[in-house]
Amino acid sequence: MAICFHSPSKPTCISPSSNHYRPNLHARSFRCNFSKTLTADPQPVFTSVKSFAPATVANLGPGFDFLGAAVDGIGDFVSLRVDPDVRPGEISIVDIDGVGNSAKKLSKNPLWNCAGIAAISVMKMLGVRSVGLSLSLEKGLPLGSGLGSSAASAAAAAVAVNEIFGRKLGVDDLVLAGLDSEAKVSGYHADNVAPALMGGFVLIRSYDPLELIPLTFPSDKELFFVLVNPEFEAPTKKMRAALPSEIGMSDHVWNCSQAAALVASILQGDLRGLGKALSSDRIVEPRRAPLIPGMEGVKKAALEAGAFGCTISGAGPTAVAITDDEEKGREIGERMVEAFLEEGKLKAVAMVKQLDRVGARLMSSNLR
Amino acid sequence: MAICFHSPSKPTCISPSSNHYRPNLHARSFRCNFSKTLTADPQPVFTSVKSFAPATVANLGPGFDFLGAAVDGIGDFVSLRVDPDVRPGEISIVDIDGVGNSAKKLSKNPLWNCAGIAAISVMKMLGVRSVGLSLSLEKGLPLGSGLGSSAASAAAAAVAVNEIFGRKLGVDDLVLAGLDSEAKVSGYHADNVAPALMGGFVLIRSYDPLELIPLTFPSDKELFFVLVNPEFEAPTKKMRAALPSEIGMSDHVWNCSQAAALVASILQGDLRGLGKALSSDRIVEPRRAPLIPGMEGVKKAALEAGAFGCTISGAGPTAVAITDDEEKGREIGERMVEAFLEEGKLKAVAMVKQLDRVGARLMSSNLR
Repeated sequence: MAICFHSPSKPTCISPSSNHYRPNLHARSFRCNFSKTLTADPQPVFTSVKSFAPATVANLGPGFDFLGAAVDGIGDFVSLRVDPDVRPGEISIVDIDGVGNSAKKLSKNPLWNCAGIAAISVMKMLGVRSVGLSLSLEKGLPLGSGLGSSAASAAAAAVAVNEIFGRKLGVDDLVLAGLDSEAKVSGYHADNVAPALMGGFVLIRSYDPLELIPLTFPSDKELFFVLVNPEFEAPTKKMRAALPSEIGMSDHVWNCSQAAALVASILQGDLRGLGKALSSDRIVEPRRAPLIPGMEGVKKAALEAGAFGCTISGAGPTAVAITDDEEKGREIGERMVEAFLEEGKLKAVAMVKQLDRVGARLMSSNLR
Repeated sequence: MAICFHSPSKPTCISPSSNHYRPNLHARSFRCNFSKTLTADPQPVFTSVKSFAPATVANLGPGFDFLGAAVDGIGDFVSLRVDPDVRPGEISIVDIDGVGNSAKKLSKNPLWNCAGIAAISVMKMLGVRSVGLSLSLEKGLPLGSGLGSSAASAAAAAVAVNEIFGRKLGVDDLVLAGLDSEAKVSGYHADNVAPALMGGFVLIRSYDPLELIPLTFPSDKELFFVLVNPEFEAPTKKMRAALPSEIGMSDHVWNCSQAAALVASILQGDLRGLGKALSSDRIVEPRRAPLIPGMEGVKKAALEAGAFGCTISGAGPTAVAITDDEEKGREIGERMVEAFLEEGKLKAVAMVKQLDRVGARLMSSNLR
């Protein structure tokens, strides 16, 4: 669901005053202070900032298309600085670096880059006209992994722009900026970008108006995601085509009740219940799993190794399992890697990461 | 969903040792202690008991078929006594009394009476063989109203039998007994009988095995149900036939997200969110509401009068709205009654009732 758009075009500066990249913005009713701040032209508080936004696991089984969670310790960094060489009111992407081939695949044209689109969107909300910015993106996430790569870039950029001008916008506005980016690169879905910005679990209740429900997992409980990423490019078109257009009533009721149980388990801190709900999708996962070689065996291996639940992260190919213990998480990850190799003939890498409860954040700043 | 079966057959004593009324019981995996207690033949602790079980609102919009809530101050009573005139191990229904024509419509044959079936089921679980019981049912709920009439009778009877023998069974066992009753009279659904027994909101996570998730609405918050019952017999067959067999993907995702939001709102005590979710069903309510004259206007009137949300209770015809204030609830009820009359040409009666947080309970008992 969150794959960055690739464009071969050369680096370009884009002014946020151009409006064509925010279609229908005014047609929606938002809870942001966009209209209030549009004409402000704020001055930067910092000469430079560095921000981070975490990876995210969207869908979560029966939470398809409306639920996501942030993952601690893996994500993207954005460095942003006031740059007199960039025309006032514009932004330039000067550098992209990071894991795998992400740097090569991503465009430096801000209009075609997740971070660029979100940054422009925030500049527009703030009404920035007299300052130019340059942005460097450091990818900690591989593209097309199902871990919210585009959302992490967008969230980190949105936070960086907001912070450099003194944090004038609320998180809802930043989600809207992130949505502009997601809409361009992977579809109008907030289930990655909302948790990337807000941390924890986030339920997308509606888009018109945008309504987000943060779901607090109890702070005294541990939750670890076992993320196993195989060397495989999920066939995005096939993944989408695999979704049924019609769903039988009994499957609908089942998935609804499991989505409800998923939310109850999160709020009640019931990891067993959460895992069971995560594993219970009868609509999307059964159709998508066969498109990822070995996925069914990987899920089986995870559950046999003691994971509370396992499903596909986002649209895949990463498999996500959950547990309450880091060491156990590593064992589960090993079994899952083995299963990907044995049953899918795919090399895979496992990570064990905690729930990120914070979301995108400022990492450092330099005062003017 | 919860309409008592009418049978003209004469009163009969039924032994719980006959097994034909519990089909497939052993085929399911339960969390009850049924097998342990089957041979116990316990002695009664009391000579008589009186129990109460509350009305329930099932479905709750997008919670169709898996969510229900108990309603305080309205429900059914069961009086049960050790009766030497009843053959040991058997039960006799000696009296049925109550609102409307429920007494006339209900059978005194325990095999065809909601209370009787549940009582027999509990006796069987307990292994009662040496004592006979007689049961009186006092209906506080009209039949076929959408307020869980059959479930209230079953729950009250199940609790009464369990209490007279010293409360040896847990609430899960009693839900199973109630399910035996519901299966016979209105379908194998626990969304009325589980909240009738447990109180509060209950999520039915699965039936095989039976898994129930109690959802605690915060104790420091007020929640009132405005229940408006029109003089109209909901056409059960049509109500069922109105359900679609197939559901479009976008409606499925929408209803899932609203069901998830409903659960989040309950647990977070967010009445506005709860109301919004209650009103948001795009699958069942839009097809059933047109079958209840005036229902669409009644919902509109409720929302205009300040209700947080409104939908059909169970399979109708009762409309249920929610609010946080009793006086406001009465005003909302008046507007809803007016709308039933104006738009549906139906007389209706409004009640304002709090959430019942306790569930079925012992009201009085006499020691041996």
